[in-house]
Amino acid sequence: MDAPANGGRANGGLDAIFSPRSIALVGASDDPARIGGRPLAYLRRSGFDGAIYPVNPKRVTVQGVPAFASVAALPAAPDLALLAVPAAATLEAVEACAAAGVKGAIVFAAGFAEMGEAGVAEQRRIADAARAGGMRLLGPNCLGAADAATGYYGTFSIMLDEAFLTPGPVAIVSQSGAYGSHVAQLARTRGLGIRHWITTGNEGDVDLAEALLWTVERDDVRVVIAYAEGIRRRETFFAALERARERGVAIVMMKVGRSDVGARAVGSHTAALAGSDAVFDAVCRQYGVHRARSTAEQIDVAYACARGHYPSGNTLGIFTMSGGLGIQMADDADAAALDVAPMPDKAQAELKALLPYASPVNPVDATAQAMTDLPLMSRYIGTMIERGGYDMFAAILGTAPALPSYAERLAEALDAAAANSGVLRAVTMNAPAAAVRAYEERGFLVFDDSVALTGALGALVRFRESFARPKMAAVPLPAPFRATGPLSEHGAKAVLGAAGIAFPNERLARNPEEAAAAARTIGFPVVVKICSPDIAHKTEVGGVMVGVADAAAVTAATETLLARAAMAAPGARIEGVLVAPMIAGGVETIAGIHIDATLGPVVMFGLGGIFVEVLKDVTFRAVPFDVGEAHRMIAETNAAALLRGVRGAEPADVAALADTLAALSRFAAANADRLAGVDINPLKVMPQGQGAQPLDALVLTREGGG
Amino acid sequence: MDAPANGGRANGGLDAIFSPRSIALVGASDDPARIGGRPLAYLRRSGFDGAIYPVNPKRVTVQGVPAFASVAALPAAPDLALLAVPAAATLEAVEACAAAGVKGAIVFAAGFAEMGEAGVAEQRRIADAARAGGMRLLGPNCLGAADAATGYYGTFSIMLDEAFLTPGPVAIVSQSGAYGSHVAQLARTRGLGIRHWITTGNEGDVDLAEALLWTVERDDVRVVIAYAEGIRRRETFFAALERARERGVAIVMMKVGRSDVGARAVGSHTAALAGSDAVFDAVCRQYGVHRARSTAEQIDVAYACARGHYPSGNTLGIFTMSGGLGIQMADDADAAALDVAPMPDKAQAELKALLPYASPVNPVDATAQAMTDLPLMSRYIGTMIERGGYDMFAAILGTAPALPSYAERLAEALDAAAANSGVLRAVTMNAPAAAVRAYEERGFLVFDDSVALTGALGALVRFRESFARPKMAAVPLPAPFRATGPLSEHGAKAVLGAAGIAFPNERLARNPEEAAAAARTIGFPVVVKICSPDIAHKTEVGGVMVGVADAAAVTAATETLLARAAMAAPGARIEGVLVAPMIAGGVETIAGIHIDATLGPVVMFGLGGIFVEVLKDVTFRAVPFDVGEAHRMIAETNAAALLRGVRGAEPADVAALADTLAALSRFAAANADRLAGVDINPLKVMPQGQGAQPLDALVLTREGGG
Repeated sequence: MDAPANGGRANGGLDAIFSPRSIALVGASDDPARIGGRPLAYLRRSGFDGAIYPVNPKRVTVQGVPAFASVAALPAAPDLALLAVPAAATLEAVEACAAAGVKGAIVFAAGFAEMGEAGVAEQRRIADAARAGGMRLLGPNCLGAADAATGYYGTFSIMLDEAFLTPGPVAIVSQSGAYGSHVAQLARTRGLGIRHWITTGNEGDVDLAEALLWTVERDDVRVVIAYAEGIRRRETFFAALERARERGVAIVMMKVGRSDVGARAVGSHTAALAGSDAVFDAVCRQYGVHRARSTAEQIDVAYACARGHYPSGNTLGIFTMSGGLGIQMADDADAAALDVAPMPDKAQAELKALLPYASPVNPVDATAQAMTDLPLMSRYIGTMIERGGYDMFAAILGTAPALPSYAERLAEALDAAAANSGVLRAVTMNAPAAAVRAYEERGFLVFDDSVALTGALGALVRFRESFARPKMAAVPLPAPFRATGPLSEHGAKAVLGAAGIAFPNERLARNPEEAAAAARTIGFPVVVKICSPDIAHKTEVGGVMVGVADAAAVTAATETLLARAAMAAPGARIEGVLVAPMIAGGVETIAGIHIDATLGPVVMFGLGGIFVEVLKDVTFRAVPFDVGEAHRMIAETNAAALLRGVRGAEPADVAALADTLAALSRFAAANADRLAGVDINPLKVMPQGQGAQPLDALVLTREGGG
Repeated sequence: MDAPANGGRANGGLDAIFSPRSIALVGASDDPARIGGRPLAYLRRSGFDGAIYPVNPKRVTVQGVPAFASVAALPAAPDLALLAVPAAATLEAVEACAAAGVKGAIVFAAGFAEMGEAGVAEQRRIADAARAGGMRLLGPNCLGAADAATGYYGTFSIMLDEAFLTPGPVAIVSQSGAYGSHVAQLARTRGLGIRHWITTGNEGDVDLAEALLWTVERDDVRVVIAYAEGIRRRETFFAALERARERGVAIVMMKVGRSDVGARAVGSHTAALAGSDAVFDAVCRQYGVHRARSTAEQIDVAYACARGHYPSGNTLGIFTMSGGLGIQMADDADAAALDVAPMPDKAQAELKALLPYASPVNPVDATAQAMTDLPLMSRYIGTMIERGGYDMFAAILGTAPALPSYAERLAEALDAAAANSGVLRAVTMNAPAAAVRAYEERGFLVFDDSVALTGALGALVRFRESFARPKMAAVPLPAPFRATGPLSEHGAKAVLGAAGIAFPNERLARNPEEAAAAARTIGFPVVVKICSPDIAHKTEVGGVMVGVADAAAVTAATETLLARAAMAAPGARIEGVLVAPMIAGGVETIAGIHIDATLGPVVMFGLGGIFVEVLKDVTFRAVPFDVGEAHRMIAETNAAALLRGVRGAEPADVAALADTLAALSRFAAANADRLAGVDINPLKVMPQGQGAQPLDALVLTREGGG
């Protein structure tokens, strides 16, 4: 075990809660079936070798263990106190623990923030009391935590009635205790070893993000199965995801509240805000987190990652004895972005020589005949693996391994074929658990069907790409902008321009004469736009005139615009008009900064025009990010295909676009606490070498609209 | 059993193959493990009560059954001959059967069309020999067929070593024998009763479509699990799908070859063409077929349909004891287009009175506390079902039913709650098979997880909608068009116009003077386009001029266009120029007729402009179809949102668009054998009341481009 080095104070004191060396159980019960009795029964049965102090003023012993009348009466301050007391008695218990020098507490009781205003206030009181006493707190309304390697079970989860957890490379971190138990149950049925198990409940103090960060720092942990309803500490959350990536720890995330009805249910279940699901999804891609759509998928991916074998590329060789099942897997592999590359021609000829009836392309279909001559089949598959050069190999076995007489010989033959290659090996089969284990022991990943197999292998490929990506260099942020109050278009462009975003050559003119002069400098035709910090939506007041062709027209347009503004928005501060060049052509996109309710400022990018609303073809990234991330962001949208050029159009200046997005992300990071949102719409991406042209900009600050 | 009424000649003679009353086994083996021995062993063990004639010239008895030296020596012509002979001996065996008056044969041998040209020819010979003798033929390269109710097992599938099929509402029809065995194995493990099991293999004669049509006509069949790599007889296929819909039989289809690599593998596996996957997908929606993406989904949906209980609407009430799992199911339900409608306010108050801690909105989260008082929980759920008025009820039970002591009482409590309502009841649980069966016996559908449950319930809703739709009235088709050879735009519009498609008021002019006169009639500005059957792509020869403003300009434009055409396409037959009104505004869409390699002519519709290529936002329908189907077709595309009007735009004339698509479908049906394709691009859908304006039309005929 990796015991805490300094009495649980490392890692913000979380060791005391997640892997304590001594434990008090406040509200200890003699009945091992009750909430106050279960943890004690578990700790005794599991062989936890630290001190255990039942606290119960009415008893001399609890379940045979000497009891203490109060926390104050303990012979030594334990790392952790498990509080199995009602909600109403919790504050007093927390205060007593803090006074006694206890380092951490777990609060099982429900009846706090999930029960409305009074509960929220009481939850804040217990968190404050813990903080004041230098103590960390897990819960309330949680199922506790466990460390299978030390026999620490600070929980009353009934899943332990069946068996304790078996230590292994998996950690489970869940806001919901019920989900945490459910997924642990499924994971261990799948044969996964679970070292750490943590449920955070209402998150009065310790939240999911901190638990994740603590978990990904454990040397024994390779995979984290996470369940989230919302995120509280976004900086910690991002730090945990980034640290996981650096350390090659796979995070497999279930985040609920995808749908409106689900988000509504999150609201009624916990106090966590759901935030925008599209933003969460994009941030998972940014940090290389696998977001699972179903619990079954979460288990399948975690299972594959637990092996720690990440393929170095995305090619998959498929071996089948049934053409139909082979085609099905090829389809599923394609959907999972795996490359079912054909065997080299020469290798196909070699395979043809071995089995004339077989189809040696890929999927390699040896037909059911292969079953009858296992040594030949082994040689055949060996040739396929050696000559195909695939990163991954999958065999479709169906129910064949269900025949006990056959299963072992088939496993041997497959094993021999792949013995001397580093290829990642997986099979699909429908067979009893014992047969599955036999294949696993030989190093095969075993799945129920091809959707599960290809989905998990696809996840391995993406994890590897993410792990291999160098840590983003520290990005120097621009100085925060200093303007206060709402910003005009001109003001918005000035602050964005200072942050490195290039705008077209345009001028602010205070009167018709200045406007005409500006237009002459810029060249005709021009666009003339009213410029006021108090008019955010210019077109709504008729404040934009395009294609203005000469000096006289500019003069007239300026007079018209100033008159219209005076009429439509009498109190508005008018800075003048903006005179800008007409920019024709280019691909119309939209970019901006959106402040997510839970993940904070994110840069948004997508296809522009009316398609934004209809297709919602936009994506997001947490800020700041570099140009490489900007390119990955652009590639996620349908705009990418347009930018490459369709119907003979020139490719657009994607490099300039990526620069603009990265600069926007630095601006967002530098001004995170002041911004309410930014729109750059349209952002025209011109042909290669001609840059990205942001034609309009709106910066909204928290003090007021721009 | 529904015995064939007339000796197997009904249904095109398919009864003789799918449910025969007497069987010869040619190539019968005394070894019950060999291909020639297995069917005999199965038929004897299963209690098949018709005559069985082993044919083997070398033996007096086979497996104890009196044998015959040849088919000619049989005492009576059997309904069916199972041919367990090598490929090379098959033709002779088929001829002998035909000569003896056998009604049907099943050919097990491989080595035909899947082996290249020589195999294709040999397969044609055996099919021809069967046809000449009035005999139907299943295979070659198939696993045969079975009828569980009569004990007929005309197959050597090893799945029967374990147990025979149990008759029930399910039929399995599969082109692949291995897939057919695989899915049958999974279905029966799930507890599904399988009456008919049919594999069609290379389809030398009987194909999937015919087998489907035969199957959906059986009174005992409620669900067909189908597996297809390609479709041969499209008319029969459509007839089978339509007949299934009329009879309320659910077809749950796995069609492989979705991806390019999968389609390539289909090519190397069988001779069936894959066709376009998007077309197949759309046709499934048109006919109410559920197309499964995975075998697990196929089983889940078939399982739900087997109950024959289709909910009358799409509202789902979710009961959970874990908030997290409830939210997850709400998300999954939303993705499956189910409506997780909140409980009525008054009902929420009633639930609140019963369990103050619970969240009564929907998902209704009773928290784990509900577990401790089952009578109260039962009352609670009863109130939820009664007052919520949901079409479907789902309870999330997790591992609770795995505790034997608890499972039965929990099932009782749930059952009592729903006893007097017609609500469709389903649960998710992770428990042993015995617990699952106990819930099923009480009428609950049982699933592993919420993705499976909501996916299957969503399928039930869509099946019901499809079953409830009245049979499409017979559509009177227009007369086939009579023009031969390539058609000009004018010619194309003439034949489409005769079929009921309305075009803008435009004129063909043979010279500049006629063009100017036409333009005066139409009103300026106009479009002038070169018109020739030999110039399909006018813009490529500079053959279109837009915004032509007055008579002089029309004259000049016409001269220019005629000169350009003479230069760019010297041999082209020039009909003159088309003069058409400029039509501004409207939503730009595209429609056309595409000839699918397997499903024949289909109408295509989608968003127009460059987005066609980038977004591929198009859908398809088999022809002909009515206006109702056209509306469903439009609703499937992103164009639908644009047509409703975005950013304050007027709603477009969707009714006119639907009329146009339906007319196009009738044109396609009337000219199915002559068309190579039709493009109507752009098809501008104008504001309501102003119609759909097809601005250009291209009709390609099989004799040559238009």
